[in-house]
Order: sequence, then C-alpha cells, then structure tokens
Amino acid sequence: MKDELDRLMKDANLDALLVRGSAQHNAPMTYFTGLRHISRAYLVKKIGQEPILYCQNMERDEAAATGLKTYSTSDYNYSELMKEAQGDDNRATALMLARIFEKHDISGRMGVYGKLASEVIWGSYKALEEIYPRVEVVTERPLTSVLSEARKTKDEDEIDRIRTMGMITAAVVADVAGFLTSHAARDGVLVDREGQPVTIGALKKKIDLWLAMRGAENPKGVIFASGRDAGIPHSAGQDDQPIPIGQPIVFDIFPCEAGGGYFYDFTRTWCLGYAPEEVQELYDDVLDVYNKVYAKLKPDTPCRDYQIETCELFEAKGHPTVLSDESITEGYVHSLAHGLGLDVHEAPWFHQNETNQSMLRAGSVITVEPGLYYPEKNMGVRIEDTVWMRPDGTPETLVEFPKDLVLKVPGV
Amino acid sequence: MKDELDRLMKDANLDALLVRGSAQHNAPMTYFTGLRHISRAYLVKKIGQEPILYCQNMERDEAAATGLKTYSTSDYNYSELMKEAQGDDNRATALMLARIFEKHDISGRMGVYGKLASEVIWGSYKALEEIYPRVEVVTERPLTSVLSEARKTKDEDEIDRIRTMGMITAAVVADVAGFLTSHAARDGVLVDREGQPVTIGALKKKIDLWLAMRGAENPKGVIFASGRDAGIPHSAGQDDQPIPIGQPIVFDIFPCEAGGGYFYDFTRTWCLGYAPEEVQELYDDVLDVYNKVYAKLKPDTPCRDYQIETCELFEAKGHPTVLSDESITEGYVHSLAHGLGLDVHEAPWFHQNETNQSMLRAGSVITVEPGLYYPEKNMGVRIEDTVWMRPDGTPETLVEFPKDLVLKVPGV
Repeated sequence: MKDELDRLMKDANLDALLVRGSAQHNAPMTYFTGLRHISRAYLVKKIGQEPILYCQNMERDEAAATGLKTYSTSDYNYSELMKEAQGDDNRATALMLARIFEKHDISGRMGVYGKLASEVIWGSYKALEEIYPRVEVVTERPLTSVLSEARKTKDEDEIDRIRTMGMITAAVVADVAGFLTSHAARDGVLVDREGQPVTIGALKKKIDLWLAMRGAENPKGVIFASGRDAGIPHSAGQDDQPIPIGQPIVFDIFPCEAGGGYFYDFTRTWCLGYAPEEVQELYDDVLDVYNKVYAKLKPDTPCRDYQIETCELFEAKGHPTVLSDESITEGYVHSLAHGLGLDVHEAPWFHQNETNQSMLRAGSVITVEPGLYYPEKNMGVRIEDTVWMRPDGTPETLVEFPKDLVLKVPGV
Repeated sequence: MKDELDRLMKDANLDALLVRGSAQHNAPMTYFTGLRHISRAYLVKKIGQEPILYCQNMERDEAAATGLKTYSTSDYNYSELMKEAQGDDNRATALMLARIFEKHDISGRMGVYGKLASEVIWGSYKALEEIYPRVEVVTERPLTSVLSEARKTKDEDEIDRIRTMGMITAAVVADVAGFLTSHAARDGVLVDREGQPVTIGALKKKIDLWLAMRGAENPKGVIFASGRDAGIPHSAGQDDQPIPIGQPIVFDIFPCEAGGGYFYDFTRTWCLGYAPEEVQELYDDVLDVYNKVYAKLKPDTPCRDYQIETCELFEAKGHPTVLSDESITEGYVHSLAHGLGLDVHEAPWFHQNETNQSMLRAGSVITVEPGLYYPEKNMGVRIEDTVWMRPDGTPETLVEFPKDLVLKVPGV
C-alpha cells in the first residue's frame, strides 16, 4: 500500500522516485494522481516526503485536482531548453529534470516509473546521467520494484473500486449469458430470429457497448474463443466465426474503469445446449483443481508454491504441465494467477520458477485461473475469479458468479 | 510511410529496429502487427529485410494472423534464463534478446521503440549493453526518430481508417448536438424533462456509449469544458457541473479504433441559445485565423512557419501569444497543430521553437486547431479539424462538420 512507500524505499536504498507520463492508462502515475486529464506529468517523491507534481500550464487545473502540491513545467522555457540541447528533445527533458532536482534538492539513487516510449526513456535518462550525475537512475528489477511492491497490497478504497469493476463485469457477463440463451440453435450454431448465425464479432461489439453503458472501458478487448481458439489461452476468437453449440467457449473479460483505472479479470467456460463428455471431464478437472488450490490460499506463503501445487494436481490427473516442460502447448500451459489492480497483470507473480520470490500477502488482489488446453482436440477450459486476500487472512472472491458449464439454449 | 523505412534507417545509420510490448494501445507495434490480442511481442527488423515477430506460445495464432514471419519466445526457456540472470527479469530479457540477435545475425546500431514501463526499458537495455555489446542501443531523438519519420506520412489504407474514425466522430458530435438542442434552458442551464440540470458527467457517459455503439474507443476521455475550464486548453470539464446557456463550451473529442488503433481529433466551440458579443468576437478571431492558416497549408514547408504565422495573426488582433512568452496563460497558448495517426499526438510537430525541423509533407495527417483562452473571463474558443495533405499537395478536411458557434435550444 501507499503508506509502505517510505519503508520500501529505505529497504531498496532509494532516495527518490520519479514517475512520468500521462495520468490515464499509466498505472504508476494514476496510483498517485487518480484519473485525471493530464497528458504529460512528472511526479517526484523524496524519501520521507510527500510527492510533488509538475505539469504544463494548460493542464494546471487538472493537476490541482489531484490534491498534490503542483508546479508548472511551463516555468522552464521549453524553447530555451531546446536551444541549449541543440534540438535534442531528450536532452531538453534531462536539462529540465536537472533544474527541478536542483530546485528541490533531489539527489542520490532514483527509481523511475511510468509507461512511455522506449526512445524517450532510454535517451532522456542517458542524457540525465551525463548532465546531472548527482542522481543515479537505478536499474530496479521490474517484478519487485519499490512501486510494484507497494501496489502488491491494496487499501480499502482500492478494494471498493476493484469490487465495483467486478460488479460491472458480472453484470455484463450476465448480459452475455442472457443474450446467448435467448437465441436458438440451428445446424450446430447460434442463430438470430431471421435464422442467420450470430457471429463472435457481433457479440463482442455488444459487450463493448454493455461495458460502456456501465461506465467501464475495454482497452484490451475480450477473449471469446471456441474450437481450436479455445485451446490456445490468448487466442481472442475470430470475429467472422459463428458461435457453436456443444463446444467449449472460453470467455475471458478484463475491463477497467473508464479513463484507465482499476481492472477486473474474469473467465468462464461455457458449452451452449450441452457439453460433450470429454469437455465435461476436462471441466471437472479444472474446477476440482480450482477448488483445491483456492482452499489453500493463505497469506505469507510463496506464490510459486500454488503454481507447483496446481501443476502437481493436474499431472496426477494425467495432464502435461509447464512444471515438466515450459514450452508445451497442451495441458496446463500458463500460470495459476497474477496480481491485479491498476494493471491487469501486476505483482504478486505465480510463475513456478525458483527465482520467483513473490509472497502472497493479506491485502493482495489476485486472479485464480487454472485451465486446460487441447487445441488439436478443439478444447480448452479456464475458470477465473478475482480474489482478495482479506486482512483476516481468508480469500474472498470479490464478486461471485455461477460456474455452470452448460448454458441452455432453445432448440437443443 | 512503411515503404520508406529502409531509406530512413540508412539515413539514420541504423542497422536494426526493435519494437517491444503489446499489439494494443502501443502505436509502434500496432504499426507493424495491426490490432491483435498480443500482450508481449518483440519485433525485429534488419535494414533491407522484412520484420520478424517473436511472441509466446499461447499467443501464437494471434501472432500468425499478423502475416509476419513469427517465432516463439517460449523456445527460450524462461526459467533457465531467470536462473542464469539470478532472478533479474531485465537481465533474463536481455539474455533472450542476445540469443535472438545471435540467431538472426543482428548487430550494430539499433533503434528501440514501444511503450513500456520505464524500469523495464532502462534496466533491460542497460543489461543488454553489458551482455551483448555487438548491439548499440541508439539514443534517437524521439521527435525525429526513424519510426516517427516513417509514420509522418500515411498510405491509403491509413487514410481510410482515419477517415472512418472521423465519420464516427462526426456522427457522435451530431448525437451530442442533437442531445443538447433537444433539452430546454432554465435558469441559465440545460435541464431535462423533470426540470433537473443535465450534468457534464451524464453527457460524457452518453458520449462513451455512442462511441462504443459505433465501434470506437475513448481511452483519453473527452474535453467538454465551460466557464473557466473552457479558458484552459486541457481542462476536461467537471462531471458534477451543469451545462450552461450562453457561455462558450469547448468540446474536444479524440477517439480511436477499438483495441487501440487510429485516432481522430476534432473540436467545436458551442454556445447554447445565444453567444455574448465578447464570445462571438473571440470566435470570429479564431475562425478567421483558422481559415487564413488553412488556406496556406502546402507540402514541403516548415511546420513552425504555420505556428509563427498563427501567432502573428493573433497578435495583430491584439491577443498575446506564445511567440512572445511561452509561459502565458491568456491568449493563444499552444501549438497550431500536430500530426495524428496511431498516436493522437505524433509527427509532424508545429512548435514555434527554431530547433523544430518538422516539415509538412504530402501524405501527412495533421490537426488544425487555433484557439484563444481567457480563463479569468470564463472564455475559451478552439476550432479543430483533422486534415490530410493529399498527394496532389492540397489539404483536405477528412470529415466536414458545420462550424456554427450557436446551437439553438428551446426556452432561450
């Protein structure tokens, strides 16, 4: 949580943090500013002090609305900086940063954050190293950086916001189920009242609409994948394809607050009309592992243990897993879980690798999402919920939703 | 355009390009892959050769759909790399890149692109410098990087896509105008049938919905700003505020293709019911400058000339401009224009700074957006269209829309 920042900075021997970029769709900045219409900001935090925010004049009121102490980058005449930098915009930025650091007496080891163009990050910090050696731009490990560690546990306001996104997500998933089950089956696919197949693309447009109606945004699209696509975890489904009857459909939805805020992540696997025996068995295996692993979740345990446990449970059921071979494309081929917040994927991490030091903590929000994939058999199953590790140490699925495999449709 | 890449690389003395990150909301990657559900990709292009794409196994079919030659990062056992890197994920990435570069015989000066976390860019290229000195990670100037220069001119397919976004934008702007003019005025604000004020927040939710209905996404929100907010270019407007009668409202909308593709950018300034004389005069000044500068647009001219021209025209009308003082907050306080494509702001650039070498080219898509701002008088006016510099050298507003200042509403 935010209130751990100074301790984490001390542990990592950091004297300051610098966050750059937009306050929208840029998790590290939004973490401090909230969702604001600020396109280019510089947030600096010295250890033991409140963060300060630099923005351009024409975004001054949006900056002020963050509640942070704000300053104007427009005071550092850009044209003069560009002249001094001989037209090199990275160097001009570094010159401005050096003046800001001087003004606020900032030096020492600095962690840098924010989602920005590669050439901006690389070039401006290379220039800063040369111009202002009093600051050392530290190479943190992204998986365990100070900001990543702080964001690994959530406060009550964050939980409320993620839960609200969960309620929106569940409402839209219910919309989708209602839409599917109010259409009829014909010749193995779902059809509309004119007897025309409903396509995955048409459904996805409706999902975007239903999300927007509820104030959510869908920057990464949804996965609505059947057939071979269901057997490949990140195949999103093909827009021109019909929606099949009696085949597993993996429906994975991960919207965020409009403007680029907190995410939710949720997956169900559905068979319309009926489930073939082979699919039902696969589903039962996944659900069984889901329940067993979920029941074991507790704070202050290594995250990788849950991934290993998941692999072992699947292997005992005869499925290949990434524990024996990371490059497999059949069986259990991904991680059990990931943290979730202002990024859809964030700490803690659940990879089986022995170098993975992530610990599950009270206050973490994680997905739980075991799955099995057999693309050559046109089968895939994944079940995913977003789970909060409560302060009392028990896991809580933020929004409950039925886990039925089969959705009844007329005509089957 | 893409077909200029090899020439631009040669001019910049680059041997290779590396683009990293997602294929969604990450312009440099989308430029090569199109909109695909790929979360983590590495695209490498050697000079004179077609680009190749590395993705993880579980995104292999999405990768294949790009039409690029694809390879799997899953072949480079992540656990082994992490062990070798002693748990430093940046170092593990650099080790993988080094192996990829060896395999494809890539060396020399490399430009790097893609929107990624700062700590990932900084740390992984620092590690790469040490691990694989055969590659030099070049510090390009972002404003004139090879990829920025290539994207500065658009091919026919890109124009079609931007124009389609323009048609969606214009349709939604018409929706908004229809919504506003079908409500009545009471006590100086717009009210619904129950006599309750319509808020800016309620309207913005509808805008998101209308955009989603038409297949567009609105990742950066809209500006719908009145009163003092209208006088500050990037103040987005306050959700709980009513919509005023007889005051200028700056409505700036910049949606993109769903999934993070091409943008459009459009602004109108409206007064509901009537325009006070002072506002009408301000509006006439802006429209006059808009028309005069627009009429001068032609290829192979320095972009900054148009900004200087705009400043001089405004100064002749008695308005302060950034030409005399960059830090002003009244008058003409920003640039005339910017390029637009997969990013809402991209090359060419129109800053007045003498170091700005941007040239306007046939094939460029730019905004034209003069504005005047007087926040202490609760006034601001901006008029903006998106304009294509046609191959024949003439400017074409991609989608025409009326420029009336006053929208009639019942009850005024």
